[in-house]
Amino acid sequence: MEDTRMVHDSFDRQGLMHHLGAVLDVVEPGFVRIRLPYGDHLTQQHGFFHAGATTAIADSAGGYAGLSLFPEGSSVLTVEFKVNLVAPAKGEWLEAEGRVVRSGRTLTICQLEVFGVTGGERNLVALGQQTLMRIDARAERPPGLGT
Amino acid sequence: MEDTRMVHDSFDRQGLMHHLGAVLDVVEPGFVRIRLPYGDHLTQQHGFFHAGATTAIADSAGGYAGLSLFPEGSSVLTVEFKVNLVAPAKGEWLEAEGRVVRSGRTLTICQLEVFGVTGGERNLVALGQQTLMRIDARAERPPGLGT
Amino acid sequence: MEDTRMVHDSFDRQGLMHHLGAVLDVVEPGFVRIRLPYGDHLTQQHGFFHAGATTAIADSAGGYAGLSLFPEGSSVLTVEFKVNLVAPAKGEWLEAEGRVVRSGRTLTICQLEVFGVTGGERNLVALGQQTLMRIDARAERPPGLGT
Amino acid sequence: MEDTRMVHDSFDRQGLMHHLGAVLDVVEPGFVRIRLPYGDHLTQQHGFFHAGATTAIADSAGGYAGLSLFPEGSSVLTVEFKVNLVAPAKGEWLEAEGRVVRSGRTLTICQLEVFGVTGGERNLVALGQQTLMRIDARAERPPGLGT
Repeated sequence: MEDTRMVHDSFDRQGLMHHLGAVLDVVEPGFVRIRLPYGDHLTQQHGFFHAGATTAIADSAGGYAGLSLFPEGSSVLTVEFKVNLVAPAKGEWLEAEGRVVRSGRTLTICQLEVFGVTGGERNLVALGQQTLMRIDARAERPPGLGT
Repeated sequence: MEDTRMVHDSFDRQGLMHHLGAVLDVVEPGFVRIRLPYGDHLTQQHGFFHAGATTAIADSAGGYAGLSLFPEGSSVLTVEFKVNLVAPAKGEWLEAEGRVVRSGRTLTICQLEVFGVTGGERNLVALGQQTLMRIDARAERPPGLGT
Repeated sequence: MEDTRMVHDSFDRQGLMHHLGAVLDVVEPGFVRIRLPYGDHLTQQHGFFHAGATTAIADSAGGYAGLSLFPEGSSVLTVEFKVNLVAPAKGEWLEAEGRVVRSGRTLTICQLEVFGVTGGERNLVALGQQTLMRIDARAERPPGLGT
Repeated sequence: MEDTRMVHDSFDRQGLMHHLGAVLDVVEPGFVRIRLPYGDHLTQQHGFFHAGATTAIADSAGGYAGLSLFPEGSSVLTVEFKVNLVAPAKGEWLEAEGRVVRSGRTLTICQLEVFGVTGGERNLVALGQQTLMRIDARAERPPGLGT
């Protein structure tokens, strides 16, 4: 699949995802899941996953869900996102899921969910919304806000 | 200062901040700045800082700005935050600033700003708002949503 | 139902809902739907429903979804909300649905959806998230942020 | 001023602003203030301004702040906004201020503030962020998300 390859190639170029230990788990048109196994390098002061780790994989999951629906030669920028942290982010790993709600020519809206998984049981820890912008990948550098 | 020590102690327990290479730069009552020097381990697919890195330090800066005003024996939880990524996050380092806008008995609202710094010049790359909840640090574990 | 009565009583005291012409359509535990028939008094400059009308009924739907799960003697405050306007808000009427995602002792998180209805067909026009706070209705006046 | 006229013309076509009793108070390049005098038709269940009224004028103030910087022949759409309600919205009137933080070719980011005014004293009641999209006014109808 073109779409899938485009997403995998881009994910492999994200130094942060590699540094955190995140893995691209599922890539389907309009849906992406990223896994992040627990480790001491991901914690906040109470030993749970830091909100920064939780939202980093949520942002990437949504961005790649959007990218999976873009035409060849496109790239994706996050315009903004919002996350409610609804429970302590704990578990053997986190699973962030990005799902496209509306995909337009310029902007795409995704829903973001992050689950903590313990003993096979998934518990919602974060819920978010994200606005993405499609840009032309041939542009030498991302323009930011379409400037 | 009691407040400053409480913030430094908590920051030192955040595995993620250490793993990313973030440094607590300024701690004042109601204001905190965190610095994050650039590195390949922090990038998205275009070589800029990943939105996850940008928002991780923004979230911590806001959380500690809130904590700096809490009474001794308090801890802080992020309820939610929202970030607009207004320009590509590039520079020699990022500086995330959290500033308390309103501090209540239960909830505190912060404004978040992240700047990319190159050659001594600061450029706004992200703007956000955050809701924090004060909890009792003696509680054995954070309750999540006050449950 | 106690819950239902508490919601209806409160809705009837909202001058704005009456002034806009909004109607409480469905009240179930953790779910509320509000209808708003189209009129010239609700428009923005292109003749669609104004985002302020769309979000007013979305905010009330979420707030009452939260209130429906609170114990007797509670009141509800909106802490914050966020809305993506995903399509022009048009139709014979709007339907705003608030649904509780997580209900805690202090804070409740809702998902908000607004649909435009034309010829019996529902089209998503807005998607949001909302943070609510439970307060004691016997308090003489709402405290704001728990102050 | 071209810009000012474009904003006033558009405001006059907003049925909702007229119905609520809102007045365009200040229009400058990148800054707009809207006033909303108190009335029973604007209330929530405690007699304060309803969050829907507060956010309606905040959304319009931000949208027109953005429009004031657009080239002739442009129109404006709200992509999304987020509002923290930081204090009970009370006073003789509300003043909503929209201020452009970053204006790009496609997207514009605004900061939103709403104050309650009593006896000449302004008290912050809401703080928000907003993403706007510039569209071509000659288009027969707004495209929604650039579709």
